[in-house]
Amino acid sequence: MPEKPPNKQTEFGYFDDEHKEYVIIDPKTPYPWINYLGNDGFYSLISNTTGGYTFYKDAKFRRLTRYRYNNVPVDSGGKYFYIREGGCVWSPGWKPAQAPLDQYQCRHGLGYSRFLSSKRQVHCDLTCFVPLGTRAEVQRLRLSNRTEAPKKLQLYSLLEWCLWNAEDDMTNFQRNFSTGEVEVDGSHIYHKTEYRERRDHYAFYSVNSEIQGFDTDREAFLGLYNGFEAPEAVTRGRAGNSIAHGWSPIASHFLEFELGPGETKEWIFVLGYVENPAGEKWTADGGLNKTRALQMAADFDSGEKVTRALAALADYWQNLLDAYQISGPDTRLNRMVNIWNQYQCMVTFNFSRSASFFESGIGRGMGFRDSNQDLLGVVHMIPERARERILDIAATQFEDGSAYHQYQPLTKRGNAAIGKNFNDDPLWLIQSTLAYIKETGDFDILEESVPFDNDPAKANSLFAHLTASFDHVVNNLGPHGLPLIGRADWNDCLNLNCFSQDPNESFQTTENRAGEVAESVMIAGMFIAFGRDYVALCRHRGHTEEAERAERHLQAMATAIDRHGWDGDWFLRAYDAAGKPIGSHANRQGRIFIEPQGFCIMAGVGLDDGRARTALDSVNKLLAYEHGIVLNYPAYTQYHPEYGEISTYPQGYKENGGVFCHSNPWIMIAETLVGNGDRAFDYYTRLAPAFREKHAALHKTEPYVYAQMIAGKEAATPGQAKNSWLTGTAAWNYYAVTQFILGVRPTFDGLLIDPCIPAAMKGFQITRKFRGATYEISVANPAGVSRGVQQMWVDGTAVAGNLLPVFAPRSYHRVEVLLG
Amino acid sequence: MPEKPPNKQTEFGYFDDEHKEYVIIDPKTPYPWINYLGNDGFYSLISNTTGGYTFYKDAKFRRLTRYRYNNVPVDSGGKYFYIREGGCVWSPGWKPAQAPLDQYQCRHGLGYSRFLSSKRQVHCDLTCFVPLGTRAEVQRLRLSNRTEAPKKLQLYSLLEWCLWNAEDDMTNFQRNFSTGEVEVDGSHIYHKTEYRERRDHYAFYSVNSEIQGFDTDREAFLGLYNGFEAPEAVTRGRAGNSIAHGWSPIASHFLEFELGPGETKEWIFVLGYVENPAGEKWTADGGLNKTRALQMAADFDSGEKVTRALAALADYWQNLLDAYQISGPDTRLNRMVNIWNQYQCMVTFNFSRSASFFESGIGRGMGFRDSNQDLLGVVHMIPERARERILDIAATQFEDGSAYHQYQPLTKRGNAAIGKNFNDDPLWLIQSTLAYIKETGDFDILEESVPFDNDPAKANSLFAHLTASFDHVVNNLGPHGLPLIGRADWNDCLNLNCFSQDPNESFQTTENRAGEVAESVMIAGMFIAFGRDYVALCRHRGHTEEAERAERHLQAMATAIDRHGWDGDWFLRAYDAAGKPIGSHANRQGRIFIEPQGFCIMAGVGLDDGRARTALDSVNKLLAYEHGIVLNYPAYTQYHPEYGEISTYPQGYKENGGVFCHSNPWIMIAETLVGNGDRAFDYYTRLAPAFREKHAALHKTEPYVYAQMIAGKEAATPGQAKNSWLTGTAAWNYYAVTQFILGVRPTFDGLLIDPCIPAAMKGFQITRKFRGATYEISVANPAGVSRGVQQMWVDGTAVAGNLLPVFAPRSYHRVEVLLG
Repeated sequence: MPEKPPNKQTEFGYFDDEHKEYVIIDPKTPYPWINYLGNDGFYSLISNTTGGYTFYKDAKFRRLTRYRYNNVPVDSGGKYFYIREGGCVWSPGWKPAQAPLDQYQCRHGLGYSRFLSSKRQVHCDLTCFVPLGTRAEVQRLRLSNRTEAPKKLQLYSLLEWCLWNAEDDMTNFQRNFSTGEVEVDGSHIYHKTEYRERRDHYAFYSVNSEIQGFDTDREAFLGLYNGFEAPEAVTRGRAGNSIAHGWSPIASHFLEFELGPGETKEWIFVLGYVENPAGEKWTADGGLNKTRALQMAADFDSGEKVTRALAALADYWQNLLDAYQISGPDTRLNRMVNIWNQYQCMVTFNFSRSASFFESGIGRGMGFRDSNQDLLGVVHMIPERARERILDIAATQFEDGSAYHQYQPLTKRGNAAIGKNFNDDPLWLIQSTLAYIKETGDFDILEESVPFDNDPAKANSLFAHLTASFDHVVNNLGPHGLPLIGRADWNDCLNLNCFSQDPNESFQTTENRAGEVAESVMIAGMFIAFGRDYVALCRHRGHTEEAERAERHLQAMATAIDRHGWDGDWFLRAYDAAGKPIGSHANRQGRIFIEPQGFCIMAGVGLDDGRARTALDSVNKLLAYEHGIVLNYPAYTQYHPEYGEISTYPQGYKENGGVFCHSNPWIMIAETLVGNGDRAFDYYTRLAPAFREKHAALHKTEPYVYAQMIAGKEAATPGQAKNSWLTGTAAWNYYAVTQFILGVRPTFDGLLIDPCIPAAMKGFQITRKFRGATYEISVANPAGVSRGVQQMWVDGTAVAGNLLPVFAPRSYHRVEVLLG
Repeated sequence: MPEKPPNKQTEFGYFDDEHKEYVIIDPKTPYPWINYLGNDGFYSLISNTTGGYTFYKDAKFRRLTRYRYNNVPVDSGGKYFYIREGGCVWSPGWKPAQAPLDQYQCRHGLGYSRFLSSKRQVHCDLTCFVPLGTRAEVQRLRLSNRTEAPKKLQLYSLLEWCLWNAEDDMTNFQRNFSTGEVEVDGSHIYHKTEYRERRDHYAFYSVNSEIQGFDTDREAFLGLYNGFEAPEAVTRGRAGNSIAHGWSPIASHFLEFELGPGETKEWIFVLGYVENPAGEKWTADGGLNKTRALQMAADFDSGEKVTRALAALADYWQNLLDAYQISGPDTRLNRMVNIWNQYQCMVTFNFSRSASFFESGIGRGMGFRDSNQDLLGVVHMIPERARERILDIAATQFEDGSAYHQYQPLTKRGNAAIGKNFNDDPLWLIQSTLAYIKETGDFDILEESVPFDNDPAKANSLFAHLTASFDHVVNNLGPHGLPLIGRADWNDCLNLNCFSQDPNESFQTTENRAGEVAESVMIAGMFIAFGRDYVALCRHRGHTEEAERAERHLQAMATAIDRHGWDGDWFLRAYDAAGKPIGSHANRQGRIFIEPQGFCIMAGVGLDDGRARTALDSVNKLLAYEHGIVLNYPAYTQYHPEYGEISTYPQGYKENGGVFCHSNPWIMIAETLVGNGDRAFDYYTRLAPAFREKHAALHKTEPYVYAQMIAGKEAATPGQAKNSWLTGTAAWNYYAVTQFILGVRPTFDGLLIDPCIPAAMKGFQITRKFRGATYEISVANPAGVSRGVQQMWVDGTAVAGNLLPVFAPRSYHRVEVLLG
């Protein structure tokens, strides 16, 4: 194993930038530190002790392996191995056996996790990944005897099947304890519960060698009174060859073998998912049709095949990341921008908010708002998938511009149970579409015919959807001419029409008041910020009349903000259902909120007259602290039915005074707009995982990805993070750092270069792939400014301004930028 | 501890009839063997290793302590204690510490569970119960030093709070990890999550002595990587005095003390639930109002108070059980009738199907059918509560006689999400109401005004509800003049209008066909069986015209059964949506079903012409086997969309060829109707727990209560039970054995004496409380007959016939019965 690097910030691990890995060297991390495997439908979550679970496309309806969230201990259950020599049993990932290991490393890489461990001079190298284009997780396990004597060893695999529907699986035991069915054929263990009836799918777990036994019944393998740490079969040293009939089916292979001195043996395990067409469910004699499973197992039945698949996966990721690479003075910045932030953006794009150790995978579909925002972080890597996603999302919009708040990934239909009236939702479609067009130049997407309300009869162009989004604000204004907030805007917990007294009532889906008074200054800012892009698009497409109409509405909104949205030292947050201000000096608590400061300034409001700087100074003074910028201050100490869920959280947590990280980049961007590169970057470093690594023990969640929330300054545990991985934080931070701090910003007509950096930053190089061409950009800052392009050269030739044109595909251009 | 009795049938335990306890002597039972604490809203489930959970009224919406179903190992988590001496740690119920105990007994009694254990000469006596009329579980823990030397000991309590809504608690971590709040005040630990907002309730856990420390944060107490078996605080020997902020709040008291030689110390722990009126939520200074909690803790702060509460509980149960006591030749029969079957009936009445180790407590409300049937087993014990329940249930009926299939216990309103169209439902209201009237003579209940559809504007008399029930069948007949089955009849899994191909679709709530063809012969039998009682009631009340009208419909139904419901050797089960027979010689599988044999014969069909005997012989030949009578035969080996869920189960399980125990008493009753006392009793003993105790290891679930299902003869594991405790099996078996086998049967006008027993049974004595009088009944069978009362004497005087009149309340009468 490689030596620990000198730059180690924490005892738990370190970044290995060369391999694009985070290396965990102590299995007892402050919380399970996980990784995501899979890119295109087949997914696994895997922790640093090999805990986690697997599903196909939908974490609720097609769960392959069982997982118990918030268990005691946290993170028990996964895809496990036991190695046994004599009476000694250990696991390659420490858990489940938990025997102390002589060496331990978990290397979370891009789409794979590798576990290197050693005990009794037996070295284990386990690599888990989902090969590209494959509905299977592959586990390559190598064991090496590092002694001079032969060793007799046993190896047991273990996973527990989930009976497909994850919600039903954890509640409906009255039925489920009677339905489980498996089949064992050689080294292939099949899970076929409910295949006899309405399912056309089954799962299998195979190994590419003969086995000396197996188990498929959990109780037979573990014993009724044993946990995963000490299965009876393993303690006994012999598999039970059990066939599960109901109760809890599992899959465990049993291998017994000798390793000669210095010898290495390798096994490949495949956990696969198969769908059979209706006519091919059964063999001629009525048995399970295993053809596809056997083919899938055969695709990975040799070390060479697995090595090729791993190489293909590495190429896939390299190709994605290559779209934006920085070489700058701070390795932490480099590894965030080049590797981990992009990686997290891809994971968030794939999973939305559906499955993590915080999101249990049964509650939420794809969010209209979430999924639009997530595109900001990936559109430069996977423009084709972004295009598809935009059209999927737009199809769940209604003709009046409103939108289903969520839609189901399996069906792509809007979720009627949750419904609509989150009045910021429509605007995000404008942002995502514009981000896509600026990245790709694909204006044709605007002419795509897209249904409203998933009804092909109501289809219209995507452009018409954008107009509907814009007009949804225009048609839903409140008494101050500001946008009505509906159930909530981006802040799901600011519920101004809910007035709930029933603890079993959802704050998000309940409206106990008519909702025609409460207004959101944040949406007002969004409307102008995104609306200006809409106007620019209209002009670019020659829709002059529409552009002028829209501009009049933007002007009216700017006037409304001027008159009713400014509180003296910052922008107001909202007006409640009684018309009273929120986020104002007039309030005792919740006097200032982060959202309108970000969005009004991104909209350009107050940039000319100093209000932007005043507001940002207020943010700095009242909201910012060591671990980020809190959402509001002071936090609410009591429940306010007129404010909703925000006031239900203890002070300093979540939306009530927590650092809701998603919103911090808005302030970073706002700071760049007023030219304050030092503050923008300072805020960036307070959140960016690589910079926070030194706080790992306090932070708790993974030091390589953003969390949704860090406890705020009024919390009992300031600096402690929760809800890592799946958060709009990833995309917005990426957007802020790459486009506004580093300042390489796509536009309709080319790449704008407009960095806003700390004055002390002397320069950096960025390789940016844009519309097929490669831009090799060197930025120099000898004068120590924060912002301002003094001169730019393309391929050695000085050019005017700071907009790089669109170059021919596959061309390469060297760009020099002098700040000053 | 008492000696093990000589009649022990299994190594796991034995019945202690004197104390009305089942005594478990090996903590490693084949499955967790549980008990229910609480009678009136505050409930705990407790396993033989002190696992389980607590809730108030509704297991979904008001869960006090957390529980993980189907965990690994099964049954981890509960209300636990740790005793520590030096480095040695053990638990009074073996779990969670799992240190071997020198002695172990779990005594599950009526409304309490007691754990007697010993290690290192420290004897522990732990009794857990819910005092009558109290929203709290009380735990009395006594420790005795049985050595000659003083001992320094530590005691830790532990429970894990559930954040109230059990479903949300196990899924919504994104919110829940941030909301947990506790407070510690002296020896009182308060759980007050969400009290700051919409909840008016909190929970507390107290002990009646000073404590030396506490913990309220799970991770601080257990450590992130420890299970319940080895908390870090206990291993360390010192509490962390942690205050939980979000994550997972717990409650743990820490006590350190010395026990002198031979000394015994006693502690009383109280886990309570408090609701504060809106105006009394807070103290003057804004703190949690603890008045009610402190009062509740004070109610049980001394050994004397607890002893009194335990005595009151014992009196309560004795009084209930005294309503029917048998002294017969078989102690197994006695303990079933006198103790365990009545106890299970009460538990089933209290919990319906809401919470067990199989029912996760989040899925089901009160079933219309279930709750009506459950009354059969308790109406003699708690007539007032039965009356209330009948009126509650009836209020969820619609004006056309149809009924919500379920209603919510908290609101008593019908569950619209599940809806209606289970066409047997309405008839069960007739049965339960008649059972109540026969028991009590309270005909006035018929005049109670009861809403339809929970709408007071649609109220009518309960009698009108019964008429609506009757007419719902009359108005919903199919092509053969038999009742339409709707979504299902009693067999929830025979779904003849569902035709589901979507695995995420409920078989019960989906109707993909119009439903105007499929018919149920079982409902036809029910209609006559219960309809005859309805006619008798009409005549008794003088509604002659209605009686005659109803009789004509019964006659028509009898004719329909004769013409279309008889298959030659047994009664048909149903006609499917294509009009094809089910449960017929014409079928390849599912040729014969149990339900119509039971119900048609209970309706009297075929009693005169030999068809009843023929059908019962077919049952005996084709359905009955060692472990009971299976539901259908042969079991389905493939999915039949036209039959629905029944064909989804593997052969021999649940409704597909399993012994669905609920239905077996119907055959027992039918056998008594043809006078076959030997067979009736034989069937009784195949299911009755006390008789099955010898199969305990195979049976798996508790040997003192019925299970819903025992795997059938075609199963892979014949004789293995599942889904114990909450099943209509309890009430129906009680009804069959007490009223038809032992033959003491309430009627409108008195107690009918009509035993039908094994010819070899020489006699028995029954004490029956009926309408306030006590009947001391001695039955003698010197001639060795099965059925037929030759002569009866009341208080020494010979009387004609076999109907005992209604005696004056509080009178006592000696009855002698001579069979022959």
